[in-house]
Amino acid sequence: MTNDLHTDLIDTALALADAARPATLRHFRSLDLGVDNKADGGFDPVTAADKAAERVMRDVLQGRRPEDGILGEEYGQTIGKTGITWVLDPIDGTRGYLSGTPTWGVLIAASGADGPMLGVIDQPYIGERFLGGFGQAWVEGPLGRRELQTRAARPLSEAILFTTFPEVGSNEERLLFQRVEREVRLTRYGCDCYAYALLAAGQIDLVIEAGLHPYDIHAPIAVIEAAGGIVTDWQGGKAHDGGRVLAAANPEIHAEALKLLNNP
Amino acid sequence: MTNDLHTDLIDTALALADAARPATLRHFRSLDLGVDNKADGGFDPVTAADKAAERVMRDVLQGRRPEDGILGEEYGQTIGKTGITWVLDPIDGTRGYLSGTPTWGVLIAASGADGPMLGVIDQPYIGERFLGGFGQAWVEGPLGRRELQTRAARPLSEAILFTTFPEVGSNEERLLFQRVEREVRLTRYGCDCYAYALLAAGQIDLVIEAGLHPYDIHAPIAVIEAAGGIVTDWQGGKAHDGGRVLAAANPEIHAEALKLLNNP
Repeated sequence: MTNDLHTDLIDTALALADAARPATLRHFRSLDLGVDNKADGGFDPVTAADKAAERVMRDVLQGRRPEDGILGEEYGQTIGKTGITWVLDPIDGTRGYLSGTPTWGVLIAASGADGPMLGVIDQPYIGERFLGGFGQAWVEGPLGRRELQTRAARPLSEAILFTTFPEVGSNEERLLFQRVEREVRLTRYGCDCYAYALLAAGQIDLVIEAGLHPYDIHAPIAVIEAAGGIVTDWQGGKAHDGGRVLAAANPEIHAEALKLLNNP
Repeated sequence: MTNDLHTDLIDTALALADAARPATLRHFRSLDLGVDNKADGGFDPVTAADKAAERVMRDVLQGRRPEDGILGEEYGQTIGKTGITWVLDPIDGTRGYLSGTPTWGVLIAASGADGPMLGVIDQPYIGERFLGGFGQAWVEGPLGRRELQTRAARPLSEAILFTTFPEVGSNEERLLFQRVEREVRLTRYGCDCYAYALLAAGQIDLVIEAGLHPYDIHAPIAVIEAAGGIVTDWQGGKAHDGGRVLAAANPEIHAEALKLLNNP
């Protein structure tokens, strides 16, 4: 890949995130979110925002890079011709969005056959954007622009672990998760994709989740790897197909968590 | 109380929140948060930020209203002469602060003998402020300024419930909490005082917590009541002494949750 291509992919990712912001914010914190008539076939504002944001991102790609593939949460797969696929989750954390929390996000990745190369985690309400890939790793938000750098190794007993739900996944997955949970200093819940952003920003040590889709994890993988971290499945293999994910700030704590997830 | 006094108390509360912002943000998301040497008697950035923010707020009060009382998390109680006590929690949600999440907050209340009359929940990183009391109920933040209004009644099966930790409190408290949790549509965790702000903003229906201190709950009570909601203990009595708290968007859902917390 040439530097020109890297620059174009980064510029495109930023244009996608810019386009998604107004589309996702249009219904956020609106009182119609209180109306849950999805089951009745009525208007569902979360799905409306999700779809609108993916549509505007697809429009941007149609204009800028029409030959790339797209894998989106709402509109499925479009096969491309360049070997590059844009993996899009217009609103990751719809339950957080529905509740008004500021920890949902727009996930954008440019991926090749071997997984994500570039990722953006954007939080439109805060106006905060995390980007990683092609030698860049930064966050831009209320405190200005800063480099992203994951934490140095520390004992598990001093680590902070995040996951979205205490339930985590199946009962078996929950029991495995609890092996790590028992050893860490602090476990926090409910952050959706924002937990991965905090890992990349050097604030926390581990994120463990299960039942993910590819579009949930491509962007976080790219951002975390660019910041010095590691993302694998619970066996230490590639995580970009989704499922069970272990994200870690450094190789040492990754190895410790992996051992607990695998050795009874 | 006169309107002039109301205006002065509101202006003072806003001045306190303004003063606390830089003090709390100074260490937020800093990498020294990774260093946990509190036990060694070393520098603890969370406690430093907590103390610095309370100190600047006490300075503001000394200048503006030196005869009021103060009850602060870090520096304890100062008896006043006016019947008004400022109840201050400079960083509510220190574990969230430590982890980098944007859901901790600065809590400020002006309280009388019967409890809080005016409250502010301020989130400095987002730049978001919720105020309730003396006929005002508003939020100012990324989407501009909006009126606060809690949700209308809906069945428990459609409600959103928040609490900070899945553990909630003692085992007994957890079992009581789970009676409500089983009936709601969605339970979310980990939001510290931000959950009360979301309740006031009409985004969620219930917050249930245990083990609170007075400074954790005075400001939320004032904001939620001004927005149309109800905050009591788990028996339906006053909640401003802390302990077990049930905050609800409307009388109907408050009554439903109260019944579950009390009738086996």
